[in-house]
Amino acid sequence: MLLNVSQQNKTKNNELETGNELLHGFSKQMHALATELFPMNRSITGNGVRETLGKLKEILPELQIHEVESGTQVFDWSIPNEWNLTEAYITDPSGRVICDTNVCNLHIVGYSIPIDLELDLDDLKEHIHTLPEKPDSIPYVTSYYKERWGFCMTHEQYQSLKPGKYKVHINTSLKSGSLTYGELKIPGESEKELFFSTYVCHPSMANNELSGPVLATFLAKWVTNKVDRRYSYRFIFIPETIGSITYLSKNLKELQTLMHAGFNITCVGDERSYSYLPSRDGNGLSDLVIQHVLKNTDPNYKSYSFLARGSDERQYCSPGVDLKVASLMRSKYEEYPEYHTSKDDLTLVTAKGLGDCLLSYMRSVAIIEDNDIYVANQLCEPQMGKRGLYPLLGNSILPEDTMRMMNILAYCDGEKSLLEVANVLDVPAWELIPLFTILKQHELIKRIANEQ
Amino acid sequence: MLLNVSQQNKTKNNELETGNELLHGFSKQMHALATELFPMNRSITGNGVRETLGKLKEILPELQIHEVESGTQVFDWSIPNEWNLTEAYITDPSGRVICDTNVCNLHIVGYSIPIDLELDLDDLKEHIHTLPEKPDSIPYVTSYYKERWGFCMTHEQYQSLKPGKYKVHINTSLKSGSLTYGELKIPGESEKELFFSTYVCHPSMANNELSGPVLATFLAKWVTNKVDRRYSYRFIFIPETIGSITYLSKNLKELQTLMHAGFNITCVGDERSYSYLPSRDGNGLSDLVIQHVLKNTDPNYKSYSFLARGSDERQYCSPGVDLKVASLMRSKYEEYPEYHTSKDDLTLVTAKGLGDCLLSYMRSVAIIEDNDIYVANQLCEPQMGKRGLYPLLGNSILPEDTMRMMNILAYCDGEKSLLEVANVLDVPAWELIPLFTILKQHELIKRIANEQ
Amino acid sequence: MLLNVSQQNKTKNNELETGNELLHGFSKQMHALATELFPMNRSITGNGVRETLGKLKEILPELQIHEVESGTQVFDWSIPNEWNLTEAYITDPSGRVICDTNVCNLHIVGYSIPIDLELDLDDLKEHIHTLPEKPDSIPYVTSYYKERWGFCMTHEQYQSLKPGKYKVHINTSLKSGSLTYGELKIPGESEKELFFSTYVCHPSMANNELSGPVLATFLAKWVTNKVDRRYSYRFIFIPETIGSITYLSKNLKELQTLMHAGFNITCVGDERSYSYLPSRDGNGLSDLVIQHVLKNTDPNYKSYSFLARGSDERQYCSPGVDLKVASLMRSKYEEYPEYHTSKDDLTLVTAKGLGDCLLSYMRSVAIIEDNDIYVANQLCEPQMGKRGLYPLLGNSILPEDTMRMMNILAYCDGEKSLLEVANVLDVPAWELIPLFTILKQHELIKRIANEQ
Repeated sequence: MLLNVSQQNKTKNNELETGNELLHGFSKQMHALATELFPMNRSITGNGVRETLGKLKEILPELQIHEVESGTQVFDWSIPNEWNLTEAYITDPSGRVICDTNVCNLHIVGYSIPIDLELDLDDLKEHIHTLPEKPDSIPYVTSYYKERWGFCMTHEQYQSLKPGKYKVHINTSLKSGSLTYGELKIPGESEKELFFSTYVCHPSMANNELSGPVLATFLAKWVTNKVDRRYSYRFIFIPETIGSITYLSKNLKELQTLMHAGFNITCVGDERSYSYLPSRDGNGLSDLVIQHVLKNTDPNYKSYSFLARGSDERQYCSPGVDLKVASLMRSKYEEYPEYHTSKDDLTLVTAKGLGDCLLSYMRSVAIIEDNDIYVANQLCEPQMGKRGLYPLLGNSILPEDTMRMMNILAYCDGEKSLLEVANVLDVPAWELIPLFTILKQHELIKRIANEQ
Repeated sequence: MLLNVSQQNKTKNNELETGNELLHGFSKQMHALATELFPMNRSITGNGVRETLGKLKEILPELQIHEVESGTQVFDWSIPNEWNLTEAYITDPSGRVICDTNVCNLHIVGYSIPIDLELDLDDLKEHIHTLPEKPDSIPYVTSYYKERWGFCMTHEQYQSLKPGKYKVHINTSLKSGSLTYGELKIPGESEKELFFSTYVCHPSMANNELSGPVLATFLAKWVTNKVDRRYSYRFIFIPETIGSITYLSKNLKELQTLMHAGFNITCVGDERSYSYLPSRDGNGLSDLVIQHVLKNTDPNYKSYSFLARGSDERQYCSPGVDLKVASLMRSKYEEYPEYHTSKDDLTLVTAKGLGDCLLSYMRSVAIIEDNDIYVANQLCEPQMGKRGLYPLLGNSILPEDTMRMMNILAYCDGEKSLLEVANVLDVPAWELIPLFTILKQHELIKRIANEQ
Repeated sequence: MLLNVSQQNKTKNNELETGNELLHGFSKQMHALATELFPMNRSITGNGVRETLGKLKEILPELQIHEVESGTQVFDWSIPNEWNLTEAYITDPSGRVICDTNVCNLHIVGYSIPIDLELDLDDLKEHIHTLPEKPDSIPYVTSYYKERWGFCMTHEQYQSLKPGKYKVHINTSLKSGSLTYGELKIPGESEKELFFSTYVCHPSMANNELSGPVLATFLAKWVTNKVDRRYSYRFIFIPETIGSITYLSKNLKELQTLMHAGFNITCVGDERSYSYLPSRDGNGLSDLVIQHVLKNTDPNYKSYSFLARGSDERQYCSPGVDLKVASLMRSKYEEYPEYHTSKDDLTLVTAKGLGDCLLSYMRSVAIIEDNDIYVANQLCEPQMGKRGLYPLLGNSILPEDTMRMMNILAYCDGEKSLLEVANVLDVPAWELIPLFTILKQHELIKRIANEQ
């Protein structure tokens, strides 16, 4: 019987263990999806976003695509004109095409206006962006809110440019249209929601950003297949900043009423150290869960202050909005050398990296789903031996699961949630879930409330 | 007069100083009592317990002995049959008697059923318990809740056993009877109680357990002789686990109403580092007092988490019982090499070790008895000089007691108890008690409330 | 425009920057004033105090001088007789005048009774105080509350005294008179006050004490010249201990009602490490402000416990008085080698030392004056770019002031004061004040309450 405890443990929680088969399959599919999405030219508006969402909808058929017209007022902002790129390149004095967006989307400054021009190298240089300190990387540059044009290239290429006449060709359109985003709602027993936001506005970069929407897609797929969802789920795929502001301007009250825990999914694909970016006050349920998962996964994870924020938590956690949205990441945006350059590619982001992070999010979801408050059903310790849950020979060393069950019983005081008990015991909550189940089955504890 | 302060201090608190005469006498008597109790064959029921309690009653005539019938339901448990041992031994192939309980009580597995049997060495070995990693120690093994029989011996002896026919003789009785415990109530000014629990169910081991009942007995004796007890006192001498569960099933409401502070006395006899095992939330008055006493006695004392619990606090602190019972110990059970073996004897436990721990418990009692909340009787500092409590020449260094009195006056704000003031001043509370008395006598402070 | 932010910053806060011109002038004037006050023979009563206050009134014409009669009961104390010194000296066997108060005021024990006497060296020695461990320093000794006489000299001089007849001449008067103190009230928009206490009872010592009244004088001068004072200000110049007790006995209710923050100014003139002495609970506004100023000025400043108190906070923070008065200091009294000796002179206290501390107090005042609670005026981040407050090219590094403004916006949640926002951002509050002003001007934040 005591052996069975561990056994049951393993069977039931299979999906939450490292290296399980489901996860292995998902990891490969995530990397394949990222590879497919990589060449699409996403920006904060335009067809690149639509194409991307279309692809995700093949995996998540319930995904709803929304369009919001240019010029719509969203809080302090208004939706900008829609930008689409056909192609852009430079022809050098020798007639050779360089800086071609057909080769790499990063060559064009995002939201560049259309132009056809012949000009001297010196004049051209005023429109070229490079990274002198990373001479073989093409930087990622945008100008959403001021009309201009420009190209990006490696500093090595820049330094090799010869004097002479250059032809610039930018075939873009910048005109009234709409901003596009995707939204997936998965109903559960309660209308209270777990909220996941990720963004789809960066062209041809892997950790920031494709790892985000790719992981969110497979997390949503896993949630959809879960039976007995206690909570409802909402996944949104939006352009960063203007997208979250737009989404909040349309859904603020609903989110404030329904959100049980919120996550901003970004930078979840490389294999370096884990990172945590808290909500503004760092005390949301997602904060507690992320801290627990990371402490039990990678004790040396990097814990950032909210001052290091840089993604859509800037909007979700802003005063008056006050949604507690936090991020579990690998290498945090702005903090890794490949960030916002052509080096942030699909060698940096791996199937294993994506899979590890997906597992962390699955564990987070599992904890929240089971994060109840229990109370012991009897006064004093129960006689576990007569239930086959305790060794009958005194002085023997207690099996780990027995010790854990005795500790759970000691802390089920009607005040602590499963997560809090796990923190007191300093063991992963996902390993305690099956032990709580055994104690429930033996009627030694009873659930008295949901957490929160 | 300033000299008199120190003088008064010393006289009044004599009993709370190390090496005082009373303590010296008690230390020797405690060790002598332990020596007398050592050979008695205690278990969770039976005549060994009755004999032990009878001995204690000679010192504490008011000790009440209670019997609870076998089969009585106590919460999730029922009182087991009573077990008594007449004798048990093995006769080896050469006819030599080995493993004789007349030599050492630990040789028999506690609660072994009676048996007379001849069997081969290989069959015998299935009933023998040893400690291969401690080859010269006899382990302590019990089987209260499953009928079986067995012997314990040193691993050295086990390895020297020759093949052949062995005779096993176990003369025990296991039948309906009762569970026995002792209870001593000492009345005080208030019906609020200081509660002390200790256990009497282990045969022939000294630190765990004889140090506990022996110290509790002399602490009770000291309390009985104290004049002006503000609090009432309750000492119980019970079998561990089943005894505390039984006691709680009969006295729960009373304890919940009356207990002002609670202590579980165990492992208080060796001379190694002090230890502290908290109540479940670690915030009871006994927790605060123990932490204070140990910090001021042995700053390197070991502070355990409630996860390391292993004695009757498991019951007292269980959810719904919620009594705040903590332990001040020397070497904690399970943590010292001699634990639960024949090496836990009266060379490990010494008169000095017992005396040191008794002093710590006496100091704890003294602090709780005087742990009032005071408020200064005047605004601003009083003029101590005109009362002979302050030097009259400016620029001289203040005597320690003067500085302490000025600090007491500064923190007697009507909110802090004596113990809290002592913690702020970072000095032993028992050294402040006489200074509070002087300030009271000069009407510079007045008591406004009991702590709690 | 972005450049203008920094620009505006510099202009507006000029006075709060190190090395500014106003401060430079004040530093020199403070040291000159201290030089002028140094020879005056201050004690807890008498003409030395009157002379000193008269000098300060030349700079602060609104300073009120109060006299409180000898024998007046003030809480547990009564005002002692007034003491005045005309001169005191010893004539040695050779007829040479030594230990002359015309040379150094510290030669006489404060409050010595008048005497004219011839006596042997051995008898004289009983009235001589020295510091054997600091043989070239004259100690500072007083005997306010016991009538006696005595002289102080260096231990070197003491050891050189030859046997023979010595003549002692002490021309003092000790008789009914009054205790003198100064009080300056500067009205502001609110009747709530910033309270500053400093003492004028030590003869011829520079850090303890002249640095205190000298700095307080120039802080008061600066406050008087400030336009738009939100708060009222009260500066008092009193003898230590008996003076603060006297002042409290006359003004307690008023201070308890009006004090918004309180400071005891002492030991603010040398150039060593900064120190902080908290109010009793360490949680007053002055505590928070001093900790913030020192952390941002000298991260290694010494933070003392209230147990290390030694000045008038002993009275202000006493139970029942409960005013939260704290001290920002350089070398704390009792903690530097020159303390209470003739070595505490105007080489130890410098213009720079005084200026640095004055700046710290000015910064403290500025923070309290602007320590409002704000709330963001819009949901989500505002579009700073359209207001010229944000760069329009993506991927550029944000200027420091822009980042700070974004952070201010993120934390203006209607709960945090400017000081709390500065602590979260870990930047000096005085550098944030102009950024709050810009955000107010752009109507991006609005003030909703005063702090406290």
